[in-house]
Formats: sequence, C-alpha cells, structure tokens
Amino acid sequence: MKKIYSVLVENRSGVLGKVAGLFARRAFNIDSLVVGETDDPTMSRMTIVSTGDSHTLEQIEKQLNKKLDVIKVKTFDEFDCISRELMLIKVKYNRSNRKDIMEVCNIMKAEIVDMSKSHMLIQLCDTSERVQQFISMMQGISITEVARTGTVALPKCKENE
Amino acid sequence: MKKIYSVLVENRSGVLGKVAGLFARRAFNIDSLVVGETDDPTMSRMTIVSTGDSHTLEQIEKQLNKKLDVIKVKTFDEFDCISRELMLIKVKYNRSNRKDIMEVCNIMKAEIVDMSKSHMLIQLCDTSERVQQFISMMQGISITEVARTGTVALPKCKENE
Repeated sequence: MKKIYSVLVENRSGVLGKVAGLFARRAFNIDSLVVGETDDPTMSRMTIVSTGDSHTLEQIEKQLNKKLDVIKVKTFDEFDCISRELMLIKVKYNRSNRKDIMEVCNIMKAEIVDMSKSHMLIQLCDTSERVQQFISMMQGISITEVARTGTVALPKCKENE
Repeated sequence: MKKIYSVLVENRSGVLGKVAGLFARRAFNIDSLVVGETDDPTMSRMTIVSTGDSHTLEQIEKQLNKKLDVIKVKTFDEFDCISRELMLIKVKYNRSNRKDIMEVCNIMKAEIVDMSKSHMLIQLCDTSERVQQFISMMQGISITEVARTGTVALPKCKENE
C-alpha cells in the first residue's frame, strides 16, 4: 500500500532531521521525501511517500502528528490527489539516434533544455510512473546522469473547498 | 553566496537523517533539499541548496565528503548548471479573473492540471526565480495551497564529457 503524507512544518533548522530520524528509528520506509517552501516563509511543506501495511501507515501518521514542529498532516492515496515529480536527465546522443530521442520527448511532453555536440539535457514533469517509463525508453540509448525530485502532491480540486 | 551540492549517496535508510543532522549540528543553512532516485536503485541523489560565506560553503563540502554513505559530492554555482524546481499551486478563481489566470499560465508556461467550479490546480516547472515570480503574480488572486519541490540541478552539457 502506498500513502502520501503532506506535512506542514515550522520552517526551523532541525525539523528535517527530526522527521528523518523518526522514519529511521522505526524503520518506516521512505520512497521519496521533498521539502519545499510554501507561500508563507514561516512554514515549509514536506511531502513523504511511503509504502507499508495499513497498520504501519497509520502509525506513521500518528507519530508525525506528535512532533512539536509539525503543524498539520494530511494523507492522500494515489486517487484523491494530483501528484507530480520532476526529473532532469542527461543522455549521450549521436546522429543516428537524435531523431528518436526528440520523438520520445515529443510524445512524453519532455523538454530538451540544454545540449552540446554530444549530450542533451532533458526535463520531464509528470507522475512517477510516467517518469519511470521515460527512463526505460532512454535506457536503450545512453543515460549519463539523472536527478529526480520525488513526488509532490496536492488534493484534487473540489467545489467550494 | 549560493551553492548547489549534488550528492550521490547509498540508498540506505538513515542516510537522510545523517545528512540532515550534519547541517543542523553545525547550523549550516539549508535553502532546499531534495532526495530522489537515480537510474541505479542502489543509489539516491540529494540536491541541497545552501547560502553562506565561502568558508562555510567549503566546510559543508568537506563534511559531506567525510560521510561514509556519501559516494560523490559535486558542487555547482548557478551559472554552470541547469536547475529546475516543480510547484503545484491551487488557486480560487471566479468568472472575472479566470481569463487573467489563464493568460499568466500561458506566458509563464504553467499548465492547469485540474479544476472544479471554484478552484484550479496549476503545475509549473522552472527556475526558483521564475517559480517565485509566478507566486507573486498569483498573490493578487487567491492562493489556497502551494507545494514546491526545491531545486534539482545537473551540470550543463559539455562536449565529449
């Protein structure tokens, strides 16, 4: 079972260490973790994706709620939120596969953001599954470097929320 | 001074806590931190953005290199890398400002990925500066929620790297 925790925390040094420590001590699994700013400079938002049985996932939520620096915890499953991930990927190309790479980028709505005579740097922003799929498509070519952000998520739009 | 650390680490539980602890204990500033997968499942990549004087920024690099789980540390400044951030932002709209929002999205290459009769969810993938600029543009409207990933970065393409 996969769960996404959207955790609003005080923007203080040490908060990340405490939350990371909580997961490490209790051997809770972290699939991805993202800490970013919000529109309020006193608060940050952590988005943590974890997999486990329902008991473990409930424990994680309870433990997060106990932390002093945690303002609010929201949990989503994959169906009630919009989740996205960002990837930068550098590939080595040659004259014979450049067209292939461009076509895959076109189909997957990826953007080529930098290039030299031998390499291209591609940006893709989509669901984790689609990002994974893009990597598979490039594996036949020649991947030099990959940097992925992990998932951020917000609840889907409702009426009059 | 701003510095970006691209840190390749062993994909083991506890690594994040150790790195976060290092920054907290020494009161190193973290502007943003991202942990994501790479194309190799045994390794993760952390991208950490920090500001400080040149002595502090050098100390951070040295301390990171001392950590057992750290495989490789690369540092960039803003000019020798391509850096991107992902933001999901939910805004409340009405009939009179919907067109404005759509036009700003168009100009800034943001994508509206979900909507209800009262809200829109917008995705933007760009540099931190441009993401900040987009938030400013929306501040006059009505921001409901923001989730940002923090920066990921890869070195610009060179020839025959």
